[in-house]
Amino acid sequence: MTTAGTIHGLGLGPGDPDLMSVRADRLLRNARHVAYFRKAGKPGQARRIVDGILPESTVEFPMEYPVTTEIHFSDPRYNAVLSDFYADCTTHLRALAEGGEDVVVLCEGDPFFYGSFMHLYTRLKDHVPVQVVPAITGMSAAWTATGMPVTWGCDVLSVLMGTLPEDDLADHMARADALVVMKIGRNMDKIRGALRKAGRYDDAWLVEYASMEGQTVSRLADAEGRVTPYFSIIVVHGQGRRP
Amino acid sequence: MTTAGTIHGLGLGPGDPDLMSVRADRLLRNARHVAYFRKAGKPGQARRIVDGILPESTVEFPMEYPVTTEIHFSDPRYNAVLSDFYADCTTHLRALAEGGEDVVVLCEGDPFFYGSFMHLYTRLKDHVPVQVVPAITGMSAAWTATGMPVTWGCDVLSVLMGTLPEDDLADHMARADALVVMKIGRNMDKIRGALRKAGRYDDAWLVEYASMEGQTVSRLADAEGRVTPYFSIIVVHGQGRRP
Ligand SMILES: C[S@@+](CC[C@H](N)C(=O)[O-])C[C@H]1O[C@@H](n2cnc3c(N)ncnc32)[C@H](O)[C@@H]1O
Ligand SMILES: C[S@@+](CC[C@H](N)C(=O)[O-])C[C@H]1O[C@@H](n2cnc3c(N)ncnc32)[C@H](O)[C@@H]1O
Repeated sequence: MTTAGTIHGLGLGPGDPDLMSVRADRLLRNARHVAYFRKAGKPGQARRIVDGILPESTVEFPMEYPVTTEIHFSDPRYNAVLSDFYADCTTHLRALAEGGEDVVVLCEGDPFFYGSFMHLYTRLKDHVPVQVVPAITGMSAAWTATGMPVTWGCDVLSVLMGTLPEDDLADHMARADALVVMKIGRNMDKIRGALRKAGRYDDAWLVEYASMEGQTVSRLADAEGRVTPYFSIIVVHGQGRRP
Repeated sequence: MTTAGTIHGLGLGPGDPDLMSVRADRLLRNARHVAYFRKAGKPGQARRIVDGILPESTVEFPMEYPVTTEIHFSDPRYNAVLSDFYADCTTHLRALAEGGEDVVVLCEGDPFFYGSFMHLYTRLKDHVPVQVVPAITGMSAAWTATGMPVTWGCDVLSVLMGTLPEDDLADHMARADALVVMKIGRNMDKIRGALRKAGRYDDAWLVEYASMEGQTVSRLADAEGRVTPYFSIIVVHGQGRRP
């Protein structure tokens, strides 16, 4: 009987290859099989990070999202289509592992922090060995880019998705000391509204492409009317006790 | 005139040297000067992580905390003593940099996330070049160790310090979907009480020494009466949308 291979959910960090872990770097340089999500027709950010690190001989398995924004996530079809997609990906990865092959699944940032890999993980973990390698999150790169610490003393940090309703956003924004907002895109106007309601708008910073080529850092108030890319994060710094 | 050296606030990650970034590894292998915080008489966790990586020739500058828990942080003397200590450390580091030397300051986890380096950073940044290298946080290693993703879909994550009053803790615990509690130590009973009030106690996990030797993972409810070490984190996982 073949010993099953291991599936590695490999966190690559925020984008700069220099910020991936020593373990990630080693796993990639020895990878026989890699898999990664991407939108149809796009190279995929996770794949781009490892350009020049993967051996030529590595076999690649791109997993192309069937939907992204065409169907709203409140539509029941959204869940059904995605669920089938994850099941198909899982079937392929599981077959590789059961055939004795190790597979590295490339993950942006930290895999267990709002990552797509989690959907494969829950479907794989009871069948084949799965190892998850944590990584630097996009938000760590974002607050580092602002040049100001994000949390001091007893500060409360809340991490919010721009997909939440405006009132929920405003409510959390008013209660926490430090804030991170992710998944911005078309939710920008709603997020601005919520920050204003919570009295936090003037303290908000927008970081695009944190640690990647094209990184920008600006006060959110100075970026009115700007269309932000997928890789955008809003940071409001805490002001806690500092001796 | 000498060109000023750079002070690197270098995040080392959660403890496993394999989880530090490629950049951190490279900076350490070439370090002429390193500085790090520690308690008097202890080796210091940050220093321990880099054992076997630092060259023999590196000059070390241990910065020994004058107080830790002897004076309560609400006592005005606490701030005064710490403030003098940080000023002294800064004087030394600044003199090195002004003399043209690069210095690597070792930081546990991510430097800008509740890190002690932030107190040096604010005192140095207007005088000499300072570069901060983000890193994997202790909480990323902790949720990875539980084997369960921490946040899904639109989950709100709140990061709380055990030093907060019980009612504030309970309030935030009831409102967020996913929770991380750090700085536990003597605050454990208060934290347990707050989790119970918020109805989250049975879903809480305790991770000690995440990614370090001696790592443990248990349900908090199964760890009653246990004295937890400084490196302990409580995680409550979010239960958001998952296709
Ligand atoms: C599906 S989440 C994945 C988060 C990732 N697992 C992490 O640990 O950062 C995608 C969101 O992360 C944020 N993001 C991740 N990396 C980023 C970066 N380098 N710069 C800016 N935003 C980033 C953006 O807000 C984006 O909408
Ligand atoms: C002063 S904060 C520093 C946080 C650090 N800068 C980071 O990014 O994780 C210290 C607290 O971090 C938590 N912590 C950091 N690393 C940890 C680890 N590897 N395992 C468990 N707890 C850890 C503990 O709760 C500890 O009380």
